[in-house]
This record gives sequence, structure tokens and C-alpha cells, in this order.
Amino acid sequence: MTLINQLSSQDEIVGFYLLKELEIKQTNSTPPKDYFDIMLCDSSGQISAKYWDASATDKETFFPMGLVKIQGVAHTYRERLQVKITKIRPATEADGVSLTDFVRSAPIRPIDLIHTIQGAIASISDEEIAAIVSFCVDKVEEKLMHYPAAKMHHHDYFAGLAYHMVRMLEIGDFLCKQRPFLNSDFLKAGIILHDIAKPEEMVAQLGIVSEYSVKGKLVGHISMASNWITEAAIRLGYDLDSHKVLGLQHLVLSHHNLGEWGSPVQPQTAEAVALHHIDSLDAKMQMVEDALATTPVTEEWTPFIRGLENKAIYRLKV
Amino acid sequence: MTLINQLSSQDEIVGFYLLKELEIKQTNSTPPKDYFDIMLCDSSGQISAKYWDASATDKETFFPMGLVKIQGVAHTYRERLQVKITKIRPATEADGVSLTDFVRSAPIRPIDLIHTIQGAIASISDEEIAAIVSFCVDKVEEKLMHYPAAKMHHHDYFAGLAYHMVRMLEIGDFLCKQRPFLNSDFLKAGIILHDIAKPEEMVAQLGIVSEYSVKGKLVGHISMASNWITEAAIRLGYDLDSHKVLGLQHLVLSHHNLGEWGSPVQPQTAEAVALHHIDSLDAKMQMVEDALATTPVTEEWTPFIRGLENKAIYRLKV
Amino acid sequence: MTLINQLSSQDEIVGFYLLKELEIKQTNSTPPKDYFDIMLCDSSGQISAKYWDASATDKETFFPMGLVKIQGVAHTYRERLQVKITKIRPATEADGVSLTDFVRSAPIRPIDLIHTIQGAIASISDEEIAAIVSFCVDKVEEKLMHYPAAKMHHHDYFAGLAYHMVRMLEIGDFLCKQRPFLNSDFLKAGIILHDIAKPEEMVAQLGIVSEYSVKGKLVGHISMASNWITEAAIRLGYDLDSHKVLGLQHLVLSHHNLGEWGSPVQPQTAEAVALHHIDSLDAKMQMVEDALATTPVTEEWTPFIRGLENKAIYRLKV
Amino acid sequence: MTLINQLSSQDEIVGFYLLKELEIKQTNSTPPKDYFDIMLCDSSGQISAKYWDASATDKETFFPMGLVKIQGVAHTYRERLQVKITKIRPATEADGVSLTDFVRSAPIRPIDLIHTIQGAIASISDEEIAAIVSFCVDKVEEKLMHYPAAKMHHHDYFAGLAYHMVRMLEIGDFLCKQRPFLNSDFLKAGIILHDIAKPEEMVAQLGIVSEYSVKGKLVGHISMASNWITEAAIRLGYDLDSHKVLGLQHLVLSHHNLGEWGSPVQPQTAEAVALHHIDSLDAKMQMVEDALATTPVTEEWTPFIRGLENKAIYRLKV
Amino acid sequence: MTLINQLSSQDEIVGFYLLKELEIKQTNSTPPKDYFDIMLCDSSGQISAKYWDASATDKETFFPMGLVKIQGVAHTYRERLQVKITKIRPATEADGVSLTDFVRSAPIRPIDLIHTIQGAIASISDEEIAAIVSFCVDKVEEKLMHYPAAKMHHHDYFAGLAYHMVRMLEIGDFLCKQRPFLNSDFLKAGIILHDIAKPEEMVAQLGIVSEYSVKGKLVGHISMASNWITEAAIRLGYDLDSHKVLGLQHLVLSHHNLGEWGSPVQPQTAEAVALHHIDSLDAKMQMVEDALATTPVTEEWTPFIRGLENKAIYRLKV
Amino acid sequence: MTLINQLSSQDEIVGFYLLKELEIKQTNSTPPKDYFDIMLCDSSGQISAKYWDASATDKETFFPMGLVKIQGVAHTYRERLQVKITKIRPATEADGVSLTDFVRSAPIRPIDLIHTIQGAIASISDEEIAAIVSFCVDKVEEKLMHYPAAKMHHHDYFAGLAYHMVRMLEIGDFLCKQRPFLNSDFLKAGIILHDIAKPEEMVAQLGIVSEYSVKGKLVGHISMASNWITEAAIRLGYDLDSHKVLGLQHLVLSHHNLGEWGSPVQPQTAEAVALHHIDSLDAKMQMVEDALATTPVTEEWTPFIRGLENKAIYRLKV
Repeated sequence: MTLINQLSSQDEIVGFYLLKELEIKQTNSTPPKDYFDIMLCDSSGQISAKYWDASATDKETFFPMGLVKIQGVAHTYRERLQVKITKIRPATEADGVSLTDFVRSAPIRPIDLIHTIQGAIASISDEEIAAIVSFCVDKVEEKLMHYPAAKMHHHDYFAGLAYHMVRMLEIGDFLCKQRPFLNSDFLKAGIILHDIAKPEEMVAQLGIVSEYSVKGKLVGHISMASNWITEAAIRLGYDLDSHKVLGLQHLVLSHHNLGEWGSPVQPQTAEAVALHHIDSLDAKMQMVEDALATTPVTEEWTPFIRGLENKAIYRLKV
Repeated sequence: MTLINQLSSQDEIVGFYLLKELEIKQTNSTPPKDYFDIMLCDSSGQISAKYWDASATDKETFFPMGLVKIQGVAHTYRERLQVKITKIRPATEADGVSLTDFVRSAPIRPIDLIHTIQGAIASISDEEIAAIVSFCVDKVEEKLMHYPAAKMHHHDYFAGLAYHMVRMLEIGDFLCKQRPFLNSDFLKAGIILHDIAKPEEMVAQLGIVSEYSVKGKLVGHISMASNWITEAAIRLGYDLDSHKVLGLQHLVLSHHNLGEWGSPVQPQTAEAVALHHIDSLDAKMQMVEDALATTPVTEEWTPFIRGLENKAIYRLKV
Repeated sequence: MTLINQLSSQDEIVGFYLLKELEIKQTNSTPPKDYFDIMLCDSSGQISAKYWDASATDKETFFPMGLVKIQGVAHTYRERLQVKITKIRPATEADGVSLTDFVRSAPIRPIDLIHTIQGAIASISDEEIAAIVSFCVDKVEEKLMHYPAAKMHHHDYFAGLAYHMVRMLEIGDFLCKQRPFLNSDFLKAGIILHDIAKPEEMVAQLGIVSEYSVKGKLVGHISMASNWITEAAIRLGYDLDSHKVLGLQHLVLSHHNLGEWGSPVQPQTAEAVALHHIDSLDAKMQMVEDALATTPVTEEWTPFIRGLENKAIYRLKV
Repeated sequence: MTLINQLSSQDEIVGFYLLKELEIKQTNSTPPKDYFDIMLCDSSGQISAKYWDASATDKETFFPMGLVKIQGVAHTYRERLQVKITKIRPATEADGVSLTDFVRSAPIRPIDLIHTIQGAIASISDEEIAAIVSFCVDKVEEKLMHYPAAKMHHHDYFAGLAYHMVRMLEIGDFLCKQRPFLNSDFLKAGIILHDIAKPEEMVAQLGIVSEYSVKGKLVGHISMASNWITEAAIRLGYDLDSHKVLGLQHLVLSHHNLGEWGSPVQPQTAEAVALHHIDSLDAKMQMVEDALATTPVTEEWTPFIRGLENKAIYRLKV
Repeated sequence: MTLINQLSSQDEIVGFYLLKELEIKQTNSTPPKDYFDIMLCDSSGQISAKYWDASATDKETFFPMGLVKIQGVAHTYRERLQVKITKIRPATEADGVSLTDFVRSAPIRPIDLIHTIQGAIASISDEEIAAIVSFCVDKVEEKLMHYPAAKMHHHDYFAGLAYHMVRMLEIGDFLCKQRPFLNSDFLKAGIILHDIAKPEEMVAQLGIVSEYSVKGKLVGHISMASNWITEAAIRLGYDLDSHKVLGLQHLVLSHHNLGEWGSPVQPQTAEAVALHHIDSLDAKMQMVEDALATTPVTEEWTPFIRGLENKAIYRLKV
Repeated sequence: MTLINQLSSQDEIVGFYLLKELEIKQTNSTPPKDYFDIMLCDSSGQISAKYWDASATDKETFFPMGLVKIQGVAHTYRERLQVKITKIRPATEADGVSLTDFVRSAPIRPIDLIHTIQGAIASISDEEIAAIVSFCVDKVEEKLMHYPAAKMHHHDYFAGLAYHMVRMLEIGDFLCKQRPFLNSDFLKAGIILHDIAKPEEMVAQLGIVSEYSVKGKLVGHISMASNWITEAAIRLGYDLDSHKVLGLQHLVLSHHNLGEWGSPVQPQTAEAVALHHIDSLDAKMQMVEDALATTPVTEEWTPFIRGLENKAIYRLKV
């Protein structure tokens, strides 16, 4: 079975893949015929595919997010690789394949990521801060097992959000040791809460975001998280005007740094400044690491990366 | 008694004024002497003033926000009018003057403004929306009697915030009649809630903002109002995920229109688009009206107005 | 006959439509065949269509802006609805259909819109201002009966420009009552003149702009209107340096508010500030109203609207 | 007599100078005393000065734009050179000094500049274009003898505007020879007309702009020139819609290149593109030349120049 | 033989052309067939073409940058002209055609351009400056015979870079005569060096840039040229800290004027300001001249030109 | 002896301080008297001071960067604390005070910082990279003992530049462990080289930058470092086109990330992306840490920090 990121033009391809997207279209021949316009994916990447002779039965059999076995050939169309599918059938139980094997995932098991996050909460010495963080995490814990951190920009895969949190917690720990004046309770809390409402902002399955939710568009994850902190404080009986509540809301509200990037206020505490830069460092480095990992080793340049000033990354030969 | 906005250079000035600001400074003569650097104000405007021979007693007698009787003369210093105070004494009860006579105010009595706002809430047909609006207004009702709408940009005087709301409600009523597809419940609610947290964002006395509160800086009035709506829904037992709560939060969060102007989301409902433009229309027209009213009639041009692309307004002679 | 904005995929479609655009293209089959690439429209909206077997006779029979009767079926192509035409014939007199029934129009009859505009001119108390406004309106009066206000952004339909003026006059009347310091002569004149040269800036038929004129590109409607005021004053024998002429030119020149939006000067009279905000309020609200009206009721979201920060509008369910 | 741009700290200064600005102010000693805050200028530059003991007679004797003989000393105040005046008297006829000797001027006599401009008009082969240019030049010919091209940015001295035109005409001639596809009639006309309304936009005396006129602020020199071309065509009986009129208006309207720099349309003819770049080249080079000429030769760096990205110019030693 | 910029729809086309680009693609018929997607060019312009029946032999015969004789017909596809090739064969020696006849070229022979550039270097009076310029020119002299100045924006053809230099040298000579304070050694050197590293920044053949080099992307032509000046000074034994070296590096580094346009420092010497404006004037005028020359004379408007604010240029009829 | 950052209004002050700036000015009394306008500093901060009766002897005795013993009193002038000096004398050897005790310094000894940097170079496994880094460090090693990293923005004190490097090396080590795909040789080299030319860009003494050098303004530290790498490769006999040289130049050139921040190219290698974000994280956190450390503990807010969106930092009370 060929991994998608290893395909070259004219390669035969046989194996199991996920129908990430599937649309029924018509050729402009006379008479027009139905065909499937498909986005195939596996754990290594994704590729456009066509299945030209979709029968009436086929149209009842294949749907997006289904696992299939295909046979086909890769060729170049408009300067990009594409697969022409010659045979296709649904995967069956007997095939012993599982959906989650066909999507990109964080390199650490979700259960271990959650464990690390819970450990970080447990290590917060201030009880109120820890309780508010727990309240918010509980709202999305099930989704934290699989949600990506974003639709496209970074950590856009299975459990990408939890992975982003865990990596940021590592940086946060380092930074608190390097600069002891930082309040590690606030910094840990900020790292865990800053994107905590993303699972409600986006609709995702298997680490793939299909769209933003209505609430995601009208309120946004930043204000949602701020509202959740308010809710937590009310439910837990804490003072809404305390510096703890204020400090947590400020961390969440300011973490995008600028108004044009979505933050209604700018960082004005030491931990808020740290949070923004840790978030930025981790997201950008992950973009680089993922782009290099999913680009065939024979390519010198990755594709353009929107989050990095739309630049490609080069592999220096040293 | 001369109104401040009627003074010309070399005018004698005798009468009661408010010490809006007062600072003790030292001349750079040898030896240095203490003097008062003062901002005098009355209901028509404000002017810088100096009192050169501040005695030890004077320093115990005069404080910011105190009413005084002064005698002095206006003269030009660095191209701006200034008052040199020759005599000064505190106002006494016998003088029969009242602080509120010496600050600029909305042209309608606060009690009548509040009455109009309460009437608008009563006319909201949806019970839940009305109850949430009432909950938020109750949090600041006392302050709504006197708070300005902003530190400097517009409606920066006694009861300016309530006046801004009432004028916007008038425009909103007109617009709902002109365009019946608009939901008038949401529009009224949005108008009343959009700046409702400003009294907690700013510290003001007699319509004069001295500074922003810590919460105002770290959270901001937009996110505060969003949190209040969450709190209202929890306290009143409403569904936090209903379209009513969502719609109200969206109105508040989006009313500055753009991220760089402080809104974390952009208007995406008909009423949110209307709210932003009504807010903008009323604020800008009030800037124009106030600038013309406080500029001496003999002047062709008002001062530059920061909120109007930093342009001055000209009086055409027609 | 199915209205275009009511079509769903797989719907049969039979009825009269306007060929808003028609281009002859060739398939890339061997040998290539001619087909028609068409934009169909009716009063409710527009939709892309293909007619695959265009004969030599067909190519002599069908032209853009012709009325036709078609039979076909709607289907989805690249995520957008499209019509495959199976039969097509020109409409004949016997069909009793009229071009103007097949384009979107303002909801008020053009003759009534013109009447309202003339009434507004008649209500201008200053004779010179009224005469200058009349002079400019006379230049385009015939076109005012049907011109849209823009190519795409807002009021882009039959008599859209006159409708925009009339709605703005209503807001202007309200505002002059709310804020009596405004000069209603100038405000009315500004509303009528601000886009008065648009019919010379754009080439339009039946409310549909096909392109900008050479003069529209090289001079622009703002400077054209300013030149017309100069011309009016010369022809009518008025003083070119009077505050009336100056005030009118300023209204026209400044109504886009900022240089990057096309205004060489920024608003510096009370009426110019009002004009810009009335224009903006009316245009934006119309975008919202039209987007909601032309989006199928079953859709929660309208398409993205460029003039509203490229956001879609959501229908809250309350 | 010491030239202002040759002064060093502690230099004695005796001679005739112009009171470019004079304001009566008061010291903050007790009692305060009147003094003159003065801007002295001569043909080489300008410098701030103080005259500390202004008597009642002095206040009746000295006014802005008057010629005086002074005695004083230069010293450094807040890192800038300043003159302390010890003696001052008005210049008399007997002194044989003339105002125009005390202001900076273009290096060519105004009469010769005008002559060159008239020659350029005479060389325009198209009669209509030449006549329109003449009509506009006639409106300001007297002012063209002495007006600066701007308040501060470039050519801000006696006859600076005419000098700017003449230099641009030289570049234009060169460019038409280098690139014969350019229409030299249009280019000459554009060069002469592009800033032709500046004398009506600004109020200036002896090459010094004191302020912008009301018309300058409300209409601006670009739209004024466009209106003048309309007026010229009407008065001369030319077709307002001809490509000649259109081409001239386009040149004037587009010469600032971008909306944010004041042009309502962008250059869209070959000559309009050329005009903008010739204007820019000449203005920038003159800023450099003037900054170097008015900075003492002992200084390596000129002051910061706003029009050159706020950079200073360095004298390389080669 | 028809020149490409003279083609109209339905024209027969027979003659020799260059295969500027050639890609093998597949039709989406069943079974799919191979075809060539081609960009044809000659000295007058370029045009898209299709060759629908590519045999196995064809695929071994035709490659990008090969000369061919074709027969075909022009037709409109998606509003743009395209050629359907019916016959194609490689050009042979017997045909007597040469590659260089089929690409656009500067209007002056490369050898003459180089001669002019060498003459300019010889006229630099300062020996060290002349030697450094020579050193850098020697690095690319062979490429200077044919390299374009840019991938698309301006002078994007055979010997375009040398042509740009020569034209700028002419403007520089004129400007040094008009403003004698300019140092003509520095200005000539700056003109020759400013884009001298472009041949190493881009990969080009026959005046056509196919891509940027790795070094071009990671270092850029501006820093490369600065490094070359360092290298020249070391190799020639000059002082790295002299004002000559400094002045040359400054010219190169600042010639894009602003950081966002790629210059790490802004112009701060007279010659650096001049260099930027001469570069800009020449590049923009060439864009205009080339756009007009390659647009069929029957067209009023050229295509949109990205480097001119994305505006098209209009041919006024005078 | 009172530390400057502990002063309050009306405090007596006696002790040794550094005259960071000293200017002789004149009072505007009659007759004017000479006084010293002084910036005092010690290791904790700096404060403005005046010495009103500067005698002729004083003017020969006191100069900038001299150590003095003063007696005086702190008072508030224009809302800022200022010192009025009553007695002043130069420090003598007998006083046993040393200049370096009176300037702010990095919290680690310079010799230890240099030691750490040399250790990092020694740990670079690639010999060529290590040698190039050494070559560049050797150019400024003496200055690295005391130079600040910037004039004002961050690390603006004694040995601030070396301290910045060392802290970044710590973050770099952490990041290479967290993300092993990073090339630690390049990252270490990039950290050490990115600001290596700053000591030649700025003129500084005791950690205080007085101005930028001519080379600093005309070339800038980024291009200087790039040139040094070229020089190193030539002197050491390495291939100028190797990926090692290219990679190092790219790191230096791109580390400001955007053109408008001074980088002619954007980061396009993994290590270049990392370098920019490590630089940013360390600089911003240091701004926060230093602002909190130098603001009296009784103050809730630090002053506004230009490098942090001009926001102040708040001390939460938790």
C-alpha cells in the first residue's frame, strides 16, 4: 500500500484510503456522465482523485468519510499529482482497517496528551484557578481527544489541539524556570484555556474541520472562553471581580496580541505577553515541521505556508 | 459671570468655576516657588489657568473637583487662551452654587433619559431579551444617571452615555419603520447593551472621565458586556446556547465593526450591521454638533476633531 | 415557471428567462463542438447555464439581453447550481412577456421615485441651490428612470440609483428633524447630487452594468459631478466662488470620506459628515436586505457580501 | 551681516532680518513681563529668537513680515540654536534693504521662469490644449511670480512653484526625446496644470505659506484645477466631452497617483504615468538639494526630511 | 507568418513559433487521451495553444524551448484567444530559423548595450569605484548579454536588464547636468550595480525567467550585490570601511526605497535618492511602452498592469 | 544613598550618581542665568535633574559621563519626578566609587557571558560554521563585554547584547531538544550572529547608546553581518556558494521576519523561523521583566512599553 506523500506520476496505486471529500459531478461530454470528484487521504497526506464511471449503485454506495479500497494510477493534471481510480469498493470489517489509521494524527496518543494536561492542572497551586481551568476543560474533554487546533493553519489533524497544548506546556515550564518572576499558575492556565473553546467554534470529525459553527462565527472562540470563565466562577461561587478571574479572562482575550488578529485587548500582564509568544513559537515551528514531514524527501522546497508569510521552507544540504 | 467659551484675550474674568484639574508645581526661578496649574471648567467648556502665588494654606485649601470663585485675566500663551488667576477662594454654601451647574451635560435631564430607556425595554416584546437587558441595565443604573459615553471622543459629559442611547433609540425606531424586516427587539436591545459596561470600564465623576479602570484595560467594555449577558442568562435560568443569548452577545461583540477597532467578530446579523451604523452616525453627528456649539460663533472653523479623520468643521455662510 | 432563487438540484425548469450573458465556446472533445455558456436571469436572481449543441442557426438566433423560453434541468457543478438547457427558443410577441419583468428592480416604480426626487428639489428653499441640483438632474433624468447605483456592491438593479436617493432623502428628513442645526437644503442637495454622475460613469442596460465608461475610468463620478456643478453655475450665471457652489462641491467630493475610497477631500461641513454616514447606512442596510431576500429561505446564511467586510449574514431563529 | 545658516553658538549677530513670525507672550515670572517670540529669517534660512523686554511702544512698532535691524547673540536652547535679541529697530528706507532680499527664492528670476512657461505653452502644437492651459495660467499668473509650491515639503520659497514647473518641463523634454511615443502636448500641459490651482489653495506672501484657504481645504487644488479646465472649455466653446478635455482632466486628477495621496483616479494614460513620476523625481531631488544647501557645511547630516521617509541626507566624503 | 499580437478569433495560423512551455495532459474523456498544453511565443507576444492528439512519437519529439512549425486556428476560450494546433513539426536547420528570432528582445543589440555600459564604467573618474563596478559586472557579463530585468513586471525579455541599465544611464546623465551637485561617479555606479546580481537571483533562458534560484530566494539580489562589493574590495585590496565602499553598498541596499519593497535601509545620500527615482521612472515608463506596443492597435485599453496599481493604460484619440 | 527607582516626591537625596547627560542652558529670567540640565543615573534607573546656579568654574568641572556626589531634593514637575540639585562635586579616587557601579548591567558578569558564548561556538560540530562564527565574534569581542542590544527597546544596558545572546542560546538548546529535526549548529550560529554587527551599528559607552554610526545608518547591522560572513568565507578560504555560507547569511538577513522590520528576505529555513521567534520571545520577555524591575513596587502599572504595542504591564495581585 503506497503512502500518499510517496506517490510519483505514473505510479500504480492499490490499497485502502479514506474518502475525505466526495462529490458527484457530470462530464461535459454528450450525453454527460456522472463521475466522482474525490479527495483521498491517509495518515501521510491527501490527494485529488477522479472515478469516471460512477454507476447508479456506486452513487448509493460511496459517501464522504467512508473507507475504501481502490486501484488506480497517479498522473499529473494542471501541474499537480492526481489519481485516476479504476476500481473502488468499500472496506469491510474483514479488511481489518480502521478509520483512525487513515487520518493524520498527533505523534502522541490522545489519552497521554489528556493525561499530561490533567497533570498540569493538578500542578496549579492556586485552587480557584485550577478549578476554573478544570470546569472549562470538562466542557470539551471528550472532544479534546480528537479535535485539531485549526482548520488549516497549524496542528490541523487528529488531537492536534491537545498536542499543541502539551507542547506549549513544555515551553511554559522551561520559561518559568528561565524567568522565575513569571507566575506559573497563570501561565499554565492560560496555555490550557487559550484555545479551549475551539472545539465549539469548529465542526470537526477525525481531526478534519468541515466548517465553523454558528456560535463560532457569531461569538468566536476567544469570547466563548471568556464567557466560560464567567460561567465557571458563577457555578463555583467565586468572586467575579477577583484578580484571578480577571487575570484568566485577560490571558484568553489577549492571546492573539492584536485587534486585527482577533484580540479585543492587548497583552498587559507578564504571563499574557509570554502566552502570546509561546503560542506563536509553537504554532510556527509545527507548521515548519509538518510541512517538511509531508513533503516528499526528494523535494527541496515545501509548498507555500500561509502562516509563514506565505513562504516555502527550503531544505539546506549540509 | 463669563462663560468660558465666550472669553477673548485680555478679558477680565470673575465668577464661579470648577477646578477640573489642579496640580502643584514649582517655578524655575531661584528660589523656586509653588504655583497651581489648573484646568477650570464650566458648563460651556474648559480652559487652562495658573495661580502663581500658592501659599501653604492654599495648598491645604484647594483640590481637584472643588468649586471656587476666582478673579483673573485671560491672555494668550503658546497660541492658546489661558487664565492668570489673581484671586481665588472656595465656594461656600452661602454662594448657592452647585457642582452640577459647572459641568457640561446632555441637553435632556438624566431622569428623563432613564425613563425613555426603561420605556424602550418595556416595549421589547420578547420576555427573555427584555429580562437580560434589564439585568444588565440594573448593574449600572445609578451610574447611567451621570456617566459620559467616552473619555474624549464623543458625548464626553454628564449623562452623555444615556443621551447617546436615547438618540440611537430614536434612529433605531425610524429605521425599523423604514425597513420592517429588521427585528426591533434585537435592535433596541443592542442599542441599550452595546456600551452598557462603559461605566465599569472608565472611572468618572460629574461626567468627566479621569482614567480607565483596571478591568476596563484588561477586559474592555465589549467583553465585559458579553460576560454580563452570560451572567444574566445563568441567573435568570435561560439557555446559554439559545439564539437569543447568541444574538445579544453578537450585537455587543461586533458593534465596533472591525478587529482593529476592538470587535473580536464582525457584524453578521441584520441588526448587528444596523447597530454599528446607527452608533457611528449618532457619535459622529454629536461630535459635529458639540464642536460647533462649543466653538465661539466668531470662529469659522472648529478645532480639529480626532474622531472625524482629525478634520475641523467649517461654518458655511449661506 | 420556476423563479431562479427557488431552484434546487435536479429540478426540472421550464419557462421564460433573460439571456443576461451569452458566449459561444468550444468543448475540448475531438472534434470540438460549439456550445453556449449562458447567464440566465429573472427578477429573483441569476444562474449559470450551458446549452451543449449549438447549431449554426442557433448561433444566428440567440444574443445577450434576449428573452428566451427554455427547458432544462438544474444540477450541481463545482459546488454551485447550474442549468443544463435541453430546449431553447426566442420569446415572441405572442408570448406576451416583457424584458423588464425579467430583471431585478427597485420595489417602487421609477416614475414615483423621480416624482419624489423632484419633490425634494422643489422643497429646497434656496433658489440657487435648487437650480444647480435641477441642472445636474436634467443631465441624466432619462437614465435615472432605470440606472442601478453600482455594478455589484449595492442597489445593483433597475432604478436602483433613484431608489437609493429616495431612501436617503427619508433618512435625511428624519435627521434634520432630530438635529435642527443641520441645513436641510444642503443635505437634500448633497443626497441628490452625490452619485448623480454615476449614469455617465457606467454603461448599463435594464439595471445591469456591463462596464465602466472611458470617462468613468479617467475622471470618475465624483469629479464629474464636481465639474457639473461648475458648469451649472456658469450656465446659470452664478458666482463660482460663492459658499453655495463651494458647499455643494464639497458635499460631492467628500462623500466617500477617505482618499483610499476615492474622495480627494474629507468631510468638513456638518452636512458633509451627515451625507457620508447616511450614504453608508443606506447602502449597507440595502446589501443586507437584498442578500436576505435573494437567498432561499431554507439557507441559514447568505453568500459572502464584499461590502460588509466580506461576511455572510445569518438568520437568527427567534 | 551673518547669514542665518552660518551661525554657531555664542556668535554675535548684527544685521537686517525679516520677522517671519512675531508673537507677544508673557514670562512666568512675578509679575509676568511681555516678550516677543520671534522667527527671524533671511535668504539662507530661519531661526527662533527672543526679545525679552518688549515695551508698550515696541508692541506698537513690530509686526510679522516686517524688516528689522537687530543685535543679539546666538546660544543653544533645548539642543537647537536660538537668538537672544538685545537691540531691535525697524528698517527704514534709508537702510536700502528690500523685503525680497530676506526670503529664500528660486535660483532663477521669476520673470524668466514665467517666460519659460509661456514659451512651453507656445510650443504646444494643439490649439485647444494650448488655449485651455493659457486660460488656467492667466487665472494665477500674477501669483505665479512669487508663490511657493508647498507649505513645507518642497520648493517652499519665493517663486518655488514656477521653478518646479520649469524644472519639470526640462525633464519632460528629455523624456519625450528618449521615448517618442509620448504625446509632448499632453505632457507639457500636464506639467503646467498639475499644481496650477495651488495659489488659490494656499495663502502666501513672499513665498511663505501662512495657511490653506477655505476653498483649498474644502475642494483642494486637484479638483479646483479640474473645475478650471471645465470652465476654460465652456468659456472657449470647446466640447466638454472631447478627449482633449478628458485627457487634461485626467492628468490633473491622477497626478498624486494614489487615493491616499489625494488623487481620486489613478494614472491611466502614458502621459499621466510620466507626469506623476516626473513630479516625484523633481520634488524629491529639490528636497535633497535644498536640505544640503541650507545645512551648514560643517554638518555631516541634514535635518530629517519628512518627504524622504523622514530620513536625513548624509554627505559622503569622497 | 502571423505575429501573435496580430491574431484575431478564427484566423488561420501557419508558421514558426517557440514552445515556451509544453506540458503533457490528459483529456477527461473515456478513455482519457494525451494532449499538449502549450504556450507559443514569438517576438511580438505569447498565446496559449492546445494540440489534442499527441501520439507516443510526439511525446518524444517536442519539448519546452523548442522551435516548431505549426498549422492551426485561433478561437476564443474563456474570453481569451487560444490556438488549436492541427499540425506540428520541429523546425530543422533547413528552415533557417533561429531561436533568438522568436523571443521578445530589447530594441538595441546586446553587444551595443554592453558597449554603452562599459563606456559608462570607463567614464567614472574615481579609480576605485570604477574597479569595483568592473569586478561586479565581470561576474555576470556573459549573462548581461541576454538576461531580462525581471520575471514579469518590467523589461521581461531578452537583454532587458542591460537595456534598463542603458536607459537609466541616459536619465542619470541628464539629471547630473540639470543638478550639478550630484556625484556622477556614484550615480553611474549605482545604476550599473543596483540590479547587477539579478542574473544570479533568477534562472532565465532567452530572456525568459523560469524560476528564482535558491540563493535568489534565501539572500536576494540586493544583499548579493552588497556582498559582491565586499568581495570586490577584499580582492582588490581596498579599505572595507572607506566612504567609497560604504556609498556603493548604500546605493544598492536602498534602491527599493522601503523595507516592504525589499530595501533594508532607506536612501540617505543624494545619489541614492536619485537612483531610486530614476529606477522607478524608467521601469514604469517601460511598462507603459511595452503594454501599448504588445496590445493590438484596435484595442483602446491595454491589459491591467500589476506594476501600475493594476490599472490598464488607455489610448487617447487626439 | 538612595537608589533612583526608590525615590518619592520630597525625598532628600545624597550620594554618588553618574551624569549620563549634561547640557548648559539659560533661564529665561532677566538677565538669563546658566544652569545644568542633567540626566542622573545609577544601576537602578535614571532621573532628570536641574542645577540652577552653574558658576563659570562649574562649567569647566562637570561633563557628561562623569561621576559626581550630589545633594538635592526630589519633586514633581509636569507629572514626573525630578531632582533639584543643591550641592554637587566630582567624585574623587578617595571616594572609592567606580563608573561601572552606576549603570544598569546584565545580571551576569560579562566575562561569564562571553565564556558561555565561546562554549556554544565550541559545541558547533561543523568546523566551517564554527570558524565563520568565530571570525565574526572576534571582530567585536571587546565590545561584546559591554555593549547593549539596543538604544532603547530591550536589553539597553551594560553587556545587554551578550546577555540577550546567552538567554537565546538557552531557549535554542531547549527547542532543539523538543524538536530534534532542527539543526543545532545553524541555530546556535544564527543566535550568535544575528545581532553581531550591532556594536558597529551603534556608538555606546558603558552600555548607553549615544547615537547610530554612519555605517549603521547607511548599511545597517543586518547587511553588515551578511558582509562579514562573506569576508569570513573569503579570508578562511571557504566556498562562497556553499549551503553553509548561504544558510548563515539567510539566518542573519531574515531574522527581523518582515521587510518593514528591516529584513530584505523572509525566513525560509526551519532554523530561520526558529531564530526569529526565539529572538522575539526573549526580547519581549526581557522588556516585561525590566519594566517590572525598574518600576517602584508601589506602582500597579509600569510605564508604556513601545515594543509591546505601547502598552503598560499590570501587576495582578494574586
